[in-house]
Amino acid sequence: MPHITRNGVKVFYECMGQGSPALVFLHPWSTNHYIWANQVNDFARNHRVMVMDHRGHGQSDKPASGYAIGEMAADVVAAMDAAGIERAVLIGNSIGGMVAMQTALDAPARVIANLILSSGTNLGASTPPEVAEAMQKDWRAVFSGLLDAAIARKSKAEKPEIQAFMEGCFRNETNFTENVFWTSVADPNGVFNWNISDRLKDIKQPTLIIAGVEDGATTVEQNQFLADRIPGSEIKIYQDVGHFCQLEKPMVFNEDLRAFLRRVA
Amino acid sequence: MPHITRNGVKVFYECMGQGSPALVFLHPWSTNHYIWANQVNDFARNHRVMVMDHRGHGQSDKPASGYAIGEMAADVVAAMDAAGIERAVLIGNSIGGMVAMQTALDAPARVIANLILSSGTNLGASTPPEVAEAMQKDWRAVFSGLLDAAIARKSKAEKPEIQAFMEGCFRNETNFTENVFWTSVADPNGVFNWNISDRLKDIKQPTLIIAGVEDGATTVEQNQFLADRIPGSEIKIYQDVGHFCQLEKPMVFNEDLRAFLRRVA
Repeated sequence: MPHITRNGVKVFYECMGQGSPALVFLHPWSTNHYIWANQVNDFARNHRVMVMDHRGHGQSDKPASGYAIGEMAADVVAAMDAAGIERAVLIGNSIGGMVAMQTALDAPARVIANLILSSGTNLGASTPPEVAEAMQKDWRAVFSGLLDAAIARKSKAEKPEIQAFMEGCFRNETNFTENVFWTSVADPNGVFNWNISDRLKDIKQPTLIIAGVEDGATTVEQNQFLADRIPGSEIKIYQDVGHFCQLEKPMVFNEDLRAFLRRVA
Repeated sequence: MPHITRNGVKVFYECMGQGSPALVFLHPWSTNHYIWANQVNDFARNHRVMVMDHRGHGQSDKPASGYAIGEMAADVVAAMDAAGIERAVLIGNSIGGMVAMQTALDAPARVIANLILSSGTNLGASTPPEVAEAMQKDWRAVFSGLLDAAIARKSKAEKPEIQAFMEGCFRNETNFTENVFWTSVADPNGVFNWNISDRLKDIKQPTLIIAGVEDGATTVEQNQFLADRIPGSEIKIYQDVGHFCQLEKPMVFNEDLRAFLRRVA
């Protein structure tokens, strides 16, 4: 897995496959590139596929600060430069979706289209104060509860490995540290404070939003908010799916992505 | 993901987590490190975890020849050296299991124990000549059929993404090439010709073998052959599981690995 270095921060990426359009997969907060295991090999049959570990995650550096969504978007552009990818379809889940939208705004010429999977903007505004308070006491317990509420009941019963994957990611200091958590939370443009509500209208690329009715992390309403404001965007809403359609219903997700690629590229 | 270079061949590995014993995960022929997505994050909570792409696979170089199992075992030792891992528990699936057994024989001081998941030795001896002949005509079609017969019916119905993963791996020339296929098949110590039947008695480390009754690639009998000859080894045989327990029943596999680690380390 090669890496880019931007302002002294190493960010890892990995490419596989050949073919246009290139696809860049952007993972959720606290996780890493393994979340795309059901997509990388399948799509590398026909596409150049890039995965990354966001700064603060996995194989990438975890600097003391600098977790604004815009920093991660700049990392995406730098990694595309390094990999020789001129333009790509961005596929982002949760914070990965935020990074995709920010990249679409900051480097529109590099983005063919966006698939935003279970994301949102200005998420902190709807975080109950008691949740923020409980986090201060034991963020891992609260975060564990949030992840539990983010996976559909059926998925938890049939694929308990999804929850084990998530718990493994945020309880492993070599993947995601306590400092990354708190610094991201505090950042004025980090995961909870990042707010592009007024700029969603400026996202000009074709955009598909996928949401799950059982997603307690980014609700259907929060995803609908994006769909209502990104010009010409579409939204697909699934039953029995939470925050992680690519893990909960990988074949449905892959078929949606494939159909989307046929329309936009 | 860093790499080692041995005799001019780059072989990639990736580490995550902290804690003893270190675990080294070795993937099946034609696949890559993503097959361990349900293990890497879960076990990195308590262990140093290493994954590799075998030479000829994924992010590693694909030289014109040199696909003896012993070459891959030497790569494992070199990667452990590079990562500063003195001793590890090896977890190998299929060809990964062969590489684990070979490493246990060639570098016994580096191997604490082996978990051999659906593997065997001297596999070519039981390959029907008509299969070898059909491969000459269309190896991808035959290999696809072999993979189909290697996944349990229940797994195929409930997790069709497993088959998509496998098809994506061997139909993607940047992951696994036609030349790697044929050169491995022809190698006198490659995937089908490698035969340590007489040396299984010399594997001294604690060894757990896991097999699935619906595995058409390496049958229960072929796994039992290992168990009967590796001194003191145990075998666990699962219903409704084929060749890929770590994907078909990841929580069962992870619990078995955890219990094995409690006994051996």
